[in-house]
Amino acid sequence: MEHSHRQEHTDGGMVVIQANLDDMNPEFTSYITDLLLAAGANDVYWIPIIMKKGRPGIMLNVLVGEEGIAAMEQVIFAETTTLGLRYIRAECHRLGREFFRVETCFGPMTVKVGYHQGKVVQFAPEFRECEEAARLHKVPLKEVYEEVRSRYRSAAGPLV
Amino acid sequence: MEHSHRQEHTDGGMVVIQANLDDMNPEFTSYITDLLLAAGANDVYWIPIIMKKGRPGIMLNVLVGEEGIAAMEQVIFAETTTLGLRYIRAECHRLGREFFRVETCFGPMTVKVGYHQGKVVQFAPEFRECEEAARLHKVPLKEVYEEVRSRYRSAAGPLV
Amino acid sequence: MEHSHRQEHTDGGMVVIQANLDDMNPEFTSYITDLLLAAGANDVYWIPIIMKKGRPGIMLNVLVGEEGIAAMEQVIFAETTTLGLRYIRAECHRLGREFFRVETCFGPMTVKVGYHQGKVVQFAPEFRECEEAARLHKVPLKEVYEEVRSRYRSAAGPLV
Amino acid sequence: MEHSHRQEHTDGGMVVIQANLDDMNPEFTSYITDLLLAAGANDVYWIPIIMKKGRPGIMLNVLVGEEGIAAMEQVIFAETTTLGLRYIRAECHRLGREFFRVETCFGPMTVKVGYHQGKVVQFAPEFRECEEAARLHKVPLKEVYEEVRSRYRSAAGPLV
Amino acid sequence: MEHSHRQEHTDGGMVVIQANLDDMNPEFTSYITDLLLAAGANDVYWIPIIMKKGRPGIMLNVLVGEEGIAAMEQVIFAETTTLGLRYIRAECHRLGREFFRVETCFGPMTVKVGYHQGKVVQFAPEFRECEEAARLHKVPLKEVYEEVRSRYRSAAGPLV
Amino acid sequence: MEHSHRQEHTDGGMVVIQANLDDMNPEFTSYITDLLLAAGANDVYWIPIIMKKGRPGIMLNVLVGEEGIAAMEQVIFAETTTLGLRYIRAECHRLGREFFRVETCFGPMTVKVGYHQGKVVQFAPEFRECEEAARLHKVPLKEVYEEVRSRYRSAAGPLV
Repeated sequence: MEHSHRQEHTDGGMVVIQANLDDMNPEFTSYITDLLLAAGANDVYWIPIIMKKGRPGIMLNVLVGEEGIAAMEQVIFAETTTLGLRYIRAECHRLGREFFRVETCFGPMTVKVGYHQGKVVQFAPEFRECEEAARLHKVPLKEVYEEVRSRYRSAAGPLV
Repeated sequence: MEHSHRQEHTDGGMVVIQANLDDMNPEFTSYITDLLLAAGANDVYWIPIIMKKGRPGIMLNVLVGEEGIAAMEQVIFAETTTLGLRYIRAECHRLGREFFRVETCFGPMTVKVGYHQGKVVQFAPEFRECEEAARLHKVPLKEVYEEVRSRYRSAAGPLV
Repeated sequence: MEHSHRQEHTDGGMVVIQANLDDMNPEFTSYITDLLLAAGANDVYWIPIIMKKGRPGIMLNVLVGEEGIAAMEQVIFAETTTLGLRYIRAECHRLGREFFRVETCFGPMTVKVGYHQGKVVQFAPEFRECEEAARLHKVPLKEVYEEVRSRYRSAAGPLV
Repeated sequence: MEHSHRQEHTDGGMVVIQANLDDMNPEFTSYITDLLLAAGANDVYWIPIIMKKGRPGIMLNVLVGEEGIAAMEQVIFAETTTLGLRYIRAECHRLGREFFRVETCFGPMTVKVGYHQGKVVQFAPEFRECEEAARLHKVPLKEVYEEVRSRYRSAAGPLV
Repeated sequence: MEHSHRQEHTDGGMVVIQANLDDMNPEFTSYITDLLLAAGANDVYWIPIIMKKGRPGIMLNVLVGEEGIAAMEQVIFAETTTLGLRYIRAECHRLGREFFRVETCFGPMTVKVGYHQGKVVQFAPEFRECEEAARLHKVPLKEVYEEVRSRYRSAAGPLV
Repeated sequence: MEHSHRQEHTDGGMVVIQANLDDMNPEFTSYITDLLLAAGANDVYWIPIIMKKGRPGIMLNVLVGEEGIAAMEQVIFAETTTLGLRYIRAECHRLGREFFRVETCFGPMTVKVGYHQGKVVQFAPEFRECEEAARLHKVPLKEVYEEVRSRYRSAAGPLV
């Protein structure tokens, strides 16, 4: 098992940018998500909401550092239909992260591991690699996923 | 307490018409609901769904008798963006219904009562009247609603 | 094309008031939305949530300036069933807005235009006028909407 | 590994009973689910929907055999606020099922296995047992779950 | 009618902890909710969201005082699959609360009452007691609920 | 404007296959959608639901002709975690469809047109082409979309 490293830490100075959209073609959402991530968003997610006159709208949420606000606005005002935005201050706690390579019956695969106070609390197979292996080997994706988890667990021991 | 009557019965020959919409402005939904009800729909409701490429769409559902299908299609194809519809056969069981008038401290109000096998199982204040009384008397809507329920219950006895 | 004007700006001192409701009759939501808007709310929206014991609740969200908090509380405590509220600080970025009148085959119609850094980024037909025109002329609402957008675009040029 | 057995099969004559509820206290949902399951429902689930006037309602869905309809109606009319029901005919395809016992570091645990055309396609730890073990041993539930899956997989081989 | 008391007040120093989960087995949610409440959370709720690549995720929300953050993190990192958290500052306004006992045809029952500026604005039957009475007396839960509300209202007078 | 053609028609013998999933990693949804479409599904969509014990599950829906059921089952049982399926019979009404090419300031683009009883009722720009043009010309996607709609409308006339 090889690895690369990043420390557990908390980022102050984060912002959740929100926009309620009740007149935008929902087809546009994935394109907008991709543009925002490419422009530096830490995360992008959409929440189904009910707006004035009972309209089924969607709320865009963009998590970004304060220094990235202007870039996000550029995308949001250009690509969505909103006439306004909300900013909500946030802090982000991020676990320490390492990537391990484990040997599996589908070849070597990557596992992302999360550390809280120096202890492993999460491990997750790299999803895109699992999809590729499932397609290549013509096996269920869930079988690949389970194989990778199982191999990591055998090598690294249980979480407790 | 006065009243009007309708028997409990089951309607065969009902249809749920469904259309998945991922490219329609959600502002249009309430206008479309009103047109469909005016054109004879028994009920109209919308279900948030997730469509191809993870798009947050909405599914239109129209409950109508078979004889009303053509009228519904006229509205749906003209007013939504769909290129197709699904029909699913259904039967509808409808409780016997009566409307009662009860005296309340906000004046006489209507209660809709539902009967299953001759027994009262539901009673509901007429919502629009409660809204009007709440506005007129400048009291909480929930207080009006509770008053009407309470008066009906005193007059008619508990459900058990 | 005539117009009226408002500058792009950011309001600090906004608040999102939230209440999780798991024991309120959902019929009450639109009445409460209307009361809150009439009492000065900038925006009101509802989010479907899952609460303790897996109950499908709804979260009321009210966006308002700090000076409006007391008025909102008056309505929320009187009209909903909540025993508490959350306040979350927010800032609101609002685009510059102008209203234009454009000539269409359904008569003169209003378009709301949004400006970011002096550039047009949004334009939206006034929805209520489109609904009225659609009813009056017995044409699909989407046709009216498209006609207004198309006329504005011809007059004002594309967004790029 | 011990086991008990049930064949893969398809049940015709199933019905999905649906009721749209826009005036029921959502607190009632889990109580109603339990009553319906106790009265013989095969499955009960709730779908968030948007009803007339933009009300955020919930749709009750009960899956049951035709012979169970009357018992379900008894519960639904007594316990919900609905004035009507829809029946939609369905067929149910059920996998063959076996229960295995596997040895784990938390003691012997049950795994439910699903067969399609004689081949194992699913296996799932018995959830309640995992919860109990997690509480008893003061370890994360996900660790127990993973341990059980991993032990079954070692004993029975991969799905492919 | 007996009672116990707590004053209306506002708590500064509250936090909403959020985690977006797109790779967690949804079966785990109720177990995690229970652990968080046992560890001192004021409230726990889940919001359905749409995440990267259109995945239908769920957002965990935990409301807690600042002093409880470490305890919540312990549970969240151990039991969910998240690699990070957001903290959003909040203030909580809590109504004054009293519990009353009222005589009903199902025996004495508890009602929770909420006060805003010294005035009763809410009253709610203790839900668990209503469930027990409904089971014991084999009557609809809604009948028990209504009886308790009606008795409280007769004793204490309307809200207005 | 060139074109290709397909008649308006109704397909009997369609089926909606449904599976309620409360223990599947939501990351798997888009992969499964793609496999089902590749295996011949007419449409695939997911509905957020609330299952036993208040679990936030998702319901898989696959629309397919009867002859495609076995192929869908193969994928669903292999790739999801379900132990069973429901089939609901449906008919599908599909509009006549033509594809037109229109000249725009971003080059020639495709518009899909829908006919009901020989009359144009829908037209929609080919979404993937709009995305490509927006990326290539570095303009907002909504501007490309509007340009294509506007050009088609100028060439073909309004819907009324």
